[in-house]
Amino acid sequence: MRAVMKMEPGPGAKVVTDAPEPHLNEDEVRIKVAAAAICGTDVHLFEWGKSAQDFNPKLPLVMGHECAGIVDVVGSSVKNVKVGDRVSVETHFFDGHCYQCRIGNAHNCLNMGLLGLTWDGVFAEYVKVPANACFPLPESVPLEIGALFEPAGVSVHALQRMGNVAANSALVCGTGPIGLVVIQLLMLFGASKVVALDLNPARRKFAEQLGAIPLDPRQTDVAEFCRREFGRSGGVDVAFETSGASTVLPSLFESVRREGRIVTVGHPGREVPVDIAAYINKKGIVLSGVFGRRIWDTWETLLALVESGRLDLSWLITHRLPFEEFEHGIDLASKDAAKVILHP
Amino acid sequence: MRAVMKMEPGPGAKVVTDAPEPHLNEDEVRIKVAAAAICGTDVHLFEWGKSAQDFNPKLPLVMGHECAGIVDVVGSSVKNVKVGDRVSVETHFFDGHCYQCRIGNAHNCLNMGLLGLTWDGVFAEYVKVPANACFPLPESVPLEIGALFEPAGVSVHALQRMGNVAANSALVCGTGPIGLVVIQLLMLFGASKVVALDLNPARRKFAEQLGAIPLDPRQTDVAEFCRREFGRSGGVDVAFETSGASTVLPSLFESVRREGRIVTVGHPGREVPVDIAAYINKKGIVLSGVFGRRIWDTWETLLALVESGRLDLSWLITHRLPFEEFEHGIDLASKDAAKVILHP
Amino acid sequence: MRAVMKMEPGPGAKVVTDAPEPHLNEDEVRIKVAAAAICGTDVHLFEWGKSAQDFNPKLPLVMGHECAGIVDVVGSSVKNVKVGDRVSVETHFFDGHCYQCRIGNAHNCLNMGLLGLTWDGVFAEYVKVPANACFPLPESVPLEIGALFEPAGVSVHALQRMGNVAANSALVCGTGPIGLVVIQLLMLFGASKVVALDLNPARRKFAEQLGAIPLDPRQTDVAEFCRREFGRSGGVDVAFETSGASTVLPSLFESVRREGRIVTVGHPGREVPVDIAAYINKKGIVLSGVFGRRIWDTWETLLALVESGRLDLSWLITHRLPFEEFEHGIDLASKDAAKVILHP
Amino acid sequence: MRAVMKMEPGPGAKVVTDAPEPHLNEDEVRIKVAAAAICGTDVHLFEWGKSAQDFNPKLPLVMGHECAGIVDVVGSSVKNVKVGDRVSVETHFFDGHCYQCRIGNAHNCLNMGLLGLTWDGVFAEYVKVPANACFPLPESVPLEIGALFEPAGVSVHALQRMGNVAANSALVCGTGPIGLVVIQLLMLFGASKVVALDLNPARRKFAEQLGAIPLDPRQTDVAEFCRREFGRSGGVDVAFETSGASTVLPSLFESVRREGRIVTVGHPGREVPVDIAAYINKKGIVLSGVFGRRIWDTWETLLALVESGRLDLSWLITHRLPFEEFEHGIDLASKDAAKVILHP
Repeated sequence: MRAVMKMEPGPGAKVVTDAPEPHLNEDEVRIKVAAAAICGTDVHLFEWGKSAQDFNPKLPLVMGHECAGIVDVVGSSVKNVKVGDRVSVETHFFDGHCYQCRIGNAHNCLNMGLLGLTWDGVFAEYVKVPANACFPLPESVPLEIGALFEPAGVSVHALQRMGNVAANSALVCGTGPIGLVVIQLLMLFGASKVVALDLNPARRKFAEQLGAIPLDPRQTDVAEFCRREFGRSGGVDVAFETSGASTVLPSLFESVRREGRIVTVGHPGREVPVDIAAYINKKGIVLSGVFGRRIWDTWETLLALVESGRLDLSWLITHRLPFEEFEHGIDLASKDAAKVILHP
Repeated sequence: MRAVMKMEPGPGAKVVTDAPEPHLNEDEVRIKVAAAAICGTDVHLFEWGKSAQDFNPKLPLVMGHECAGIVDVVGSSVKNVKVGDRVSVETHFFDGHCYQCRIGNAHNCLNMGLLGLTWDGVFAEYVKVPANACFPLPESVPLEIGALFEPAGVSVHALQRMGNVAANSALVCGTGPIGLVVIQLLMLFGASKVVALDLNPARRKFAEQLGAIPLDPRQTDVAEFCRREFGRSGGVDVAFETSGASTVLPSLFESVRREGRIVTVGHPGREVPVDIAAYINKKGIVLSGVFGRRIWDTWETLLALVESGRLDLSWLITHRLPFEEFEHGIDLASKDAAKVILHP
Repeated sequence: MRAVMKMEPGPGAKVVTDAPEPHLNEDEVRIKVAAAAICGTDVHLFEWGKSAQDFNPKLPLVMGHECAGIVDVVGSSVKNVKVGDRVSVETHFFDGHCYQCRIGNAHNCLNMGLLGLTWDGVFAEYVKVPANACFPLPESVPLEIGALFEPAGVSVHALQRMGNVAANSALVCGTGPIGLVVIQLLMLFGASKVVALDLNPARRKFAEQLGAIPLDPRQTDVAEFCRREFGRSGGVDVAFETSGASTVLPSLFESVRREGRIVTVGHPGREVPVDIAAYINKKGIVLSGVFGRRIWDTWETLLALVESGRLDLSWLITHRLPFEEFEHGIDLASKDAAKVILHP
Repeated sequence: MRAVMKMEPGPGAKVVTDAPEPHLNEDEVRIKVAAAAICGTDVHLFEWGKSAQDFNPKLPLVMGHECAGIVDVVGSSVKNVKVGDRVSVETHFFDGHCYQCRIGNAHNCLNMGLLGLTWDGVFAEYVKVPANACFPLPESVPLEIGALFEPAGVSVHALQRMGNVAANSALVCGTGPIGLVVIQLLMLFGASKVVALDLNPARRKFAEQLGAIPLDPRQTDVAEFCRREFGRSGGVDVAFETSGASTVLPSLFESVRREGRIVTVGHPGREVPVDIAAYINKKGIVLSGVFGRRIWDTWETLLALVESGRLDLSWLITHRLPFEEFEHGIDLASKDAAKVILHP
């Protein structure tokens, strides 16, 4: 079958036509991929960056982990989905039995598999996954939108981790797809004011269209801006770090008010120095982060918002390409695109 | 001075021109009233209903508790406000020293005074209040809007008690001013869908304009509607009771899903039978209620929303009357008005 | 096989020797019962009381739902347990796929089965259950103690629902096994003072031995006692209702302080009148309840406490009887026993 | 009057007999000090360490901030205490009007004064403080114990920040007074198992007597120990950092399980490198810290525990000295003492 494969360590990947079709175990399903989306992790994997290598990807590997499609074959013991079901797929495969799964943290399963990293991915005509990783989509959700549930779910998870943001002022660092949906959710969940940071003017434009105040951190002292803009409370209430830039955290610590909260999503390529005394203790800031999506309440939350029409994700899709133009897609995703959809 | 006074037990109240001007203690301030609003409690007090009698109102009494105005005189030890300040006023006077005040529940102070009930109120040219009951308003907030902070604060408090409602479906019973602002906040805070109940078609119209699905509970079986509309989860996620109708709670218990939440605001005139086994235990519903506003985080939340432009309360003011037309205001407030503002 | 069976509606049950042995589906397991415990629900079922009839028990029925034993046979698709495993059993069978299961509320599954009520129970030599209802016990936990995890789990769940009780004063109404373990957990979790109510002096004696202040509500005005004993805060911080008495809730509402919390576990036989205005709204009391145990964090919590030696449940077992003396066990359980263990 | 004063930058302090007696403003009170306790901050201030300099202490300065005594004189507008009252004192002076005070974070007041750092302290015959910084002590609490409310309150605050620890395993780094009371509270609040780290064998002995497993981190690989000891969950549930050692945080991040929590109290002397990707994002650890005590719910919590007899703090007092032996006290506090009390 046709697939985008990374064959060996080092930069690059290629489209092949002879990728082996997956064979199923009894508790797995095969999905005919309808739409797949390129994630920043795919870009890092293509470029063979440190944050991708940290995942210990199996090689050769079919790349990609964001997709939706139609269930095509099901294993003998599968009960939760059937052939013909429209599904999106959770990237974090969970065993359902470990301690984390048992106490409600399946997204952080002790025996996690990672689609498109430790398990062949979705930039292919067919992908097989554990049946329990499927999220059924109602007819009302187009498959292209279903392919966005995985990345948009990271943003929803970031908001869930933050907790209630109603009436809060917010700072969002990084306006890639995750950051943009975070902004969209902040506005939807009643944030009073959102400030968005990015070096890229095209991305700042997206943020502005969503209702955020766009700032170029090279031209504006962000902490100073927040102290002035949110003078009554002494800083911004909450901040999200989605850029992965390793140098940005100190300015977030400066920008949030006392007893404020920071949620990180981006993976900095190296350790970040934190002044525990000044920020964590004396300023009382709570620092937490997210990885993946809560299973399944993040997905159910997203579905409720999309089905009710309150959350429109269609604007995120700025480009559609066939597998063959995968490299062009990687280039777009690393520059000005919001989300690039690959079609088989 | 001119004031609306209730002189004795029984229905009625009258506008007088010779109400005594208030004299100040050292920790009190006098406010020149700019705008006052009529509350359902004022209607009940005028009609001498049970829920008003339950407050043990002092008589004779200057009525009214929702207002904004200008600080006119300050007592000798007052530090938090000064003459000329624009302020709104918290109805629940708190001593700041009791156990509830000490642990962050000043709104439920053990030695609470109640403006316009146990203390002369705001339907007057001047009102005196404890200095610590003043909430300073920035220039950007018109005084008429400031007069709405007290009732809108009840709605904010109801949302705070409920907790995060992002992506939740919601049912709001009663679309008087409190219920309407609850609907407005639910939409603003990301509720996926809001259903609103009222017998009065004019009020249902307001609810519909705010984005809710209006229902007449005499014509629609509400629990059945919720089971159908929210079939995936088996019922509505959260419900607010703002009508005070003593017969409505069972249908809310039926309408919310398992592990759902109900917040009550309206005061039913008598005890309500609750099936603890079926609803509280087996269905796992959490029942809680609110009285007043959290001091001061409810007010700060409201201010952040109003100042940022995310919450517009101006549409609530449907009528403006002078004190002399007070009785007409009471009549409007008990029928189709959203909010009636009285001007001295 | 030998089993205690309820054959038909009306009072009574009998020990039979020819109960049919269970046959397994592929996702089920058979357990050789080592120890079973008698629950208040078994007493109600034996007596054919309303709260038992409300569960729509299937008849004829093998009674009992609290047990531990050894896995004896496993269905073909079972992966989480194997023959020879020592297990306790969750009474609330859950499908794992419904909305409640998906958002973390498997204990309130929309398609719940109930062991010993809608499914043949554990007062038998063998019982079959869905594999996913098994909770593996480590060697360090005796099987008799394992049989107590189900009822003790209700008490743990009640504490989980209540939230943090450290330094809180507490009132526990009813000192049957659930109430007694609630008292034990309150002391273990740092409650400052615990008051326990029961009509039965033998049960009050157990409560006293656990560190509670025992009261006979016929001889002491409980609300008055709490106001005096907890005068600083104006009442007791938290209250648990485990008796199921339909008349007791008003005195709990009177006894807890403003902004206090009540968790109900007992199922009153009829509706209870609640003064929403006085208690839920003005007093700010939060009312919630529990049914079953959170799956699996209640069980993991209990295991951590038992394995570490912090929670000793062995004192709960006051009587041990063979199946043949089942009726005597019912009699003991309805009177002075803490927990009666039945052995096959 | 007699007092321990730090006269100038650099190491040292001295006992003087001619310190000026404080003069009161109208909202201040004078307290006759009965017992004062030496804190680690006093040691740092004496030694002129960086973490003390970071507070910008005023010089010359009467040292000390932990005390209890008798109110001796009150300013003209003081209402909350009167002459003769027995009081302990909150170190964090708060204005009651700033944004943080208004939303319930008075302990992190935007205009905070710090007793014994920016305001003359308690190692003196008399100290003056704002009236609103007094915490009245009931007769049942000895003044020496009252002097320990401030430091023990830091430990209570750390537990409040952590949230519910019932049934949790815990790691406590540093067994000075703050760490020791954290251990005592963990045991009291139902932690399943507590591991305590310190380099000093005398301090580890205290920890062991409180029920903790003592470890010398130079002799035991702490993360390895936690992985083995808490193998089921993959690590310890919660960790407290009270040592201020700048090198210890990485081993805490290694030791806690996924989705675990860390609360920091100690102020490291320099920035600490944090691997955001590995620990905050992927492992899902929540990092937060505390400074001071929540006003007044930390104090009320402590009082409830001490008055009910559930928390005994008397063992903490290992040494009692007169002011004149202050330097000996500093030496003891930096070595093997738990808590050194100074008497005027």
